[in-house]
Amino acid sequence: TRIVVLPGDGIGPEVTNEAISCLEMLSDHFELGLRFEEHPFGGAGIDAHGDPLPETTLHACRNSDAVFLGAVGGPKWDKAEKRPEVGLLGLRSALGLFANLRPSRVIPGLESFSPLKASIATGADVLVVRELTGGLYFGERTQSDDFASDLCTYSRVEVERIAHVAFQEARRRGSKVTSVDKANVLATSKLWRRIVEEVAAGYPDVTLDHMYVDAAAMALVSAPGRFDVILTENLFGDILSDQLSVIGGSIGLLGSASRGADGPMMFEPIHGSAPDIAGLDIANPAGAIASAAMLLEIGLGLHEHAAMLNNALEQVLLDGARTADLGGDSTCSSFGAQVREKLQ
Amino acid sequence: TRIVVLPGDGIGPEVTNEAISCLEMLSDHFELGLRFEEHPFGGAGIDAHGDPLPETTLHACRNSDAVFLGAVGGPKWDKAEKRPEVGLLGLRSALGLFANLRPSRVIPGLESFSPLKASIATGADVLVVRELTGGLYFGERTQSDDFASDLCTYSRVEVERIAHVAFQEARRRGSKVTSVDKANVLATSKLWRRIVEEVAAGYPDVTLDHMYVDAAAMALVSAPGRFDVILTENLFGDILSDQLSVIGGSIGLLGSASRGADGPMMFEPIHGSAPDIAGLDIANPAGAIASAAMLLEIGLGLHEHAAMLNNALEQVLLDGARTADLGGDSTCSSFGAQVREKLQ
Ligand SMILES: CC(C)[C@H](C(=O)O)[C@@H](O)C(=O)O
Ligand SMILES: CC(C)[C@H](C(=O)O)[C@@H](O)C(=O)O
Repeated sequence: TRIVVLPGDGIGPEVTNEAISCLEMLSDHFELGLRFEEHPFGGAGIDAHGDPLPETTLHACRNSDAVFLGAVGGPKWDKAEKRPEVGLLGLRSALGLFANLRPSRVIPGLESFSPLKASIATGADVLVVRELTGGLYFGERTQSDDFASDLCTYSRVEVERIAHVAFQEARRRGSKVTSVDKANVLATSKLWRRIVEEVAAGYPDVTLDHMYVDAAAMALVSAPGRFDVILTENLFGDILSDQLSVIGGSIGLLGSASRGADGPMMFEPIHGSAPDIAGLDIANPAGAIASAAMLLEIGLGLHEHAAMLNNALEQVLLDGARTADLGGDSTCSSFGAQVREKLQ
Repeated sequence: TRIVVLPGDGIGPEVTNEAISCLEMLSDHFELGLRFEEHPFGGAGIDAHGDPLPETTLHACRNSDAVFLGAVGGPKWDKAEKRPEVGLLGLRSALGLFANLRPSRVIPGLESFSPLKASIATGADVLVVRELTGGLYFGERTQSDDFASDLCTYSRVEVERIAHVAFQEARRRGSKVTSVDKANVLATSKLWRRIVEEVAAGYPDVTLDHMYVDAAAMALVSAPGRFDVILTENLFGDILSDQLSVIGGSIGLLGSASRGADGPMMFEPIHGSAPDIAGLDIANPAGAIASAAMLLEIGLGLHEHAAMLNNALEQVLLDGARTADLGGDSTCSSFGAQVREKLQ
């Protein structure tokens, strides 16, 4: 089983290293046969090949069983002709990864790290299903000195396939989908709402409601417990999933999975490359480790091994290990080592 | 002085009634000479004239010194050819109201109503300066059974004028502007960032920083105290100002002002029409009353009278009056009456 590893930029390599070490340990011990190959991507791709998504990297991803990504971007490449983020969008698009799954929850025992009151945070457990290859991110752009435009488009097929993912995920959770749009203003949102309702007819066991994106942004602060699965388009999903990510105490804790109709899936922590703390060995590898668990679970169907890794991670957190983002002094590498100790 | 009053739909008329009664009282007592005339708008406009923005209403607004709006929208008109929201967008556009000012703060003494921990909520005081007549809200749309598109555009002039508003507002507050965009992806955001930097050069006394919208959505939950003025485009401003509105405990507490280069300004609570509680006399009129105070302050330059109204409102809240949104049993009308008692 071939895993392509894209450590990327900033803290990407550090957290990737901890996560992959966990996977290697599981693979060795249980003879899972995972093979890892590293490729340059993002800023590292620009440095190595003058392209954030080098041809060799894309080729390796296409021929892999799963892709693991650290993080990309940084001020060093802000003026690059093709920025690291362009490579990320290009990879999502090339692999057809239209569905981005971002689970956020307040881990029992860690409520005190939430910026929300415990009464509001406790029990919050939301999966954002974000459309990842359409909308404003991929529309035609124009740009001059005095004017710019971005086009947002959605087609029936694009909405249908992501809606199916959301309803299917909901069946494995709380059986409730909240579709988020701005249908009181946008044409794409009107289409979105109409097609989501059509798809919903095939899932009578799942409850569907609709919310405007502004109302959803409110409700995620005042009552996150009311949500189960949030289904939304690319840009709204970017904003809402990040907003949601902090209610558990730190964005550093969360992983994500992206998938298409077939082909390799991609797994990455949802935090960014955090250039300001890169190389200091203080980043939180929990999000990367959670992503590695998702790789086992969703990418390879290795449910038991995924559960082992998740349990080890949660145990280490409950034991009190805390990186700097959670006010502690665990290092990135010591945190990773603790998880691997638990695994043993 | 001619004030056009648009009670609108849902709880709009109830809260408007309380707010205008406060203004009438001040006008009578201090001989401010305010004259009020009511016009149908939104769903009420559709019911009266088949148009959410009837010609007579628009004409009255154009010829007024200020416009006061309750709220528009409701399921009754969701299938209307022109929905109430279309009337609102049309009015903003017709009056050239490109700048929407949405202040949010955690009122000292009311910290316990915030969904955020007191340690995080205390002292938060943010003004969102939202561009209101451009972006995705006003771009060309296409729509068919299987496809839809919305165009987002910004021009130099549109960005410049709203940036000036933000920097000028910042001078009267904490002298700090955070410009929010998605410049790592969108062409309009790249233009936005470049022009905001140019405008900033004329305000060396104001600090400017930039944040991506996803990062801003996080920071507004985890550290709202880091913000002073947030400057952003139409859709991001819609989402972020609503998100921010709940940190003070209830969106029902907040007012807003919209203005153009010249001509009448518009004032409205930022909450919606809340059709589910319309007519029950349980809505919170505080947001409408706060908007009335902004009308006095920003619209008419009556600083002392604005301060009186604001103080009366805050006193009533500190005395413990609470409508249902804050868990109390004050009615809309009794709350308004209490504010007017304080005014006396
Ligand atoms: C880096 C950026 C292009 C990306 C996005 O907006 O999709 C990131 O914020 C994310 O959410 O994965
Ligand atoms: C009703 C709707 C069109 C409006 C908007 O999105 O601008 C509202 O949400 C607001 O923020 O005033």
